[in-house]
Amino acid sequence: MPGYTMNKDQYQARLRRIEGQVRGLQRMVDEDTYCIDVLTQIASVTKALQGVGMGLLDEHIRHCVKDAAEATSGREEAAVDEFDAKVEEVMSAVSRMLRT
Amino acid sequence: MPGYTMNKDQYQARLRRIEGQVRGLQRMVDEDTYCIDVLTQIASVTKALQGVGMGLLDEHIRHCVKDAAEATSGREEAAVDEFDAKVEEVMSAVSRMLRT
Amino acid sequence: MPGYTMNKDQYQARLRRIEGQVRGLQRMVDEDTYCIDVLTQIASVTKALQGVGMGLLDEHIRHCVKDAAEATSGREEAAVDEFDAKVEEVMSAVSRMLRT
Amino acid sequence: MPGYTMNKDQYQARLRRIEGQVRGLQRMVDEDTYCIDVLTQIASVTKALQGVGMGLLDEHIRHCVKDAAEATSGREEAAVDEFDAKVEEVMSAVSRMLRT
Repeated sequence: MPGYTMNKDQYQARLRRIEGQVRGLQRMVDEDTYCIDVLTQIASVTKALQGVGMGLLDEHIRHCVKDAAEATSGREEAAVDEFDAKVEEVMSAVSRMLRT
Repeated sequence: MPGYTMNKDQYQARLRRIEGQVRGLQRMVDEDTYCIDVLTQIASVTKALQGVGMGLLDEHIRHCVKDAAEATSGREEAAVDEFDAKVEEVMSAVSRMLRT
Repeated sequence: MPGYTMNKDQYQARLRRIEGQVRGLQRMVDEDTYCIDVLTQIASVTKALQGVGMGLLDEHIRHCVKDAAEATSGREEAAVDEFDAKVEEVMSAVSRMLRT
Repeated sequence: MPGYTMNKDQYQARLRRIEGQVRGLQRMVDEDTYCIDVLTQIASVTKALQGVGMGLLDEHIRHCVKDAAEATSGREEAAVDEFDAKVEEVMSAVSRMLRT
């Protein structure tokens, strides 16, 4: 089970709201809304999306990364590598968020 | 007319694709997809959204800001202030994109 | 003359302060400061640097882009391309700021 | 000891190079370098700084967060809160990096 399972409903609600915001952007473009106002709304949707990403990352570290740390605690080399692989995944995810 | 008017259909198509991606995110959460894979997809949607924002900003400068520059060219103080107000709007928009 | 010429002293002062902050980061690492505190300071230096970037971009649009818009106003195709080249430069610069 | 202790020399070298880059920016401004070229260099310094931040974050999770996970493994509530506090610190640090 992924770390966000317990809060699935909350994430679904946030993503549905974001879907509505994207439809709102289509309406704005359709109605020839002033460029800067569309941009303000795009920044707001981007922020909402990154908020969901931050929430998922938080739960991922809190559960999956913690489990890996505990599972490899005091173990031999191979098991430690599993934890390192988890950290690398997390860092790549943060990297992708920073660069977009 | 906003600067993006001539490419309205292209922007609508991109926003519809983004709406589809957000629905895809809901499906991923629904199916308990691994956190990191959801995050990768969120980074991709964020990038697509910012791409739309960059496109709108490009056309805004190319049309609205240019018009303001020409309209105030060689004019008295008050008119120059109109151009300055346009630049301030643009800078605030870039600022909002950078901070999210 | 670049757009920032009139405020050169102000930019030099800000960059010297940033240089001092980077030396402060070296001291923090030297004194084994807690990782999170170093990260907080890195975020602060990054913000200061981007602030300088935003200032330069503001003056660039206010002067160089405006000049190009005025110079090409009502001119033939070739001259308009000069303005378009300026806008493309600006958009690439914003892009580089967003992606780092 | 912070997580980056073993690689302290490497971080010092990177920060000294960044300090040199900031001095290079001062020279560029002093010599009236074209705005866009200064901006390109600012984006490059920002990227280098964020690279140091990402490295520190990586080692922080690999060591401090791992230690907290192991220390609180199978413990009572209060100890678990210590791990949660570590995760909150990490998330705030990522947040600050994303927003700058």
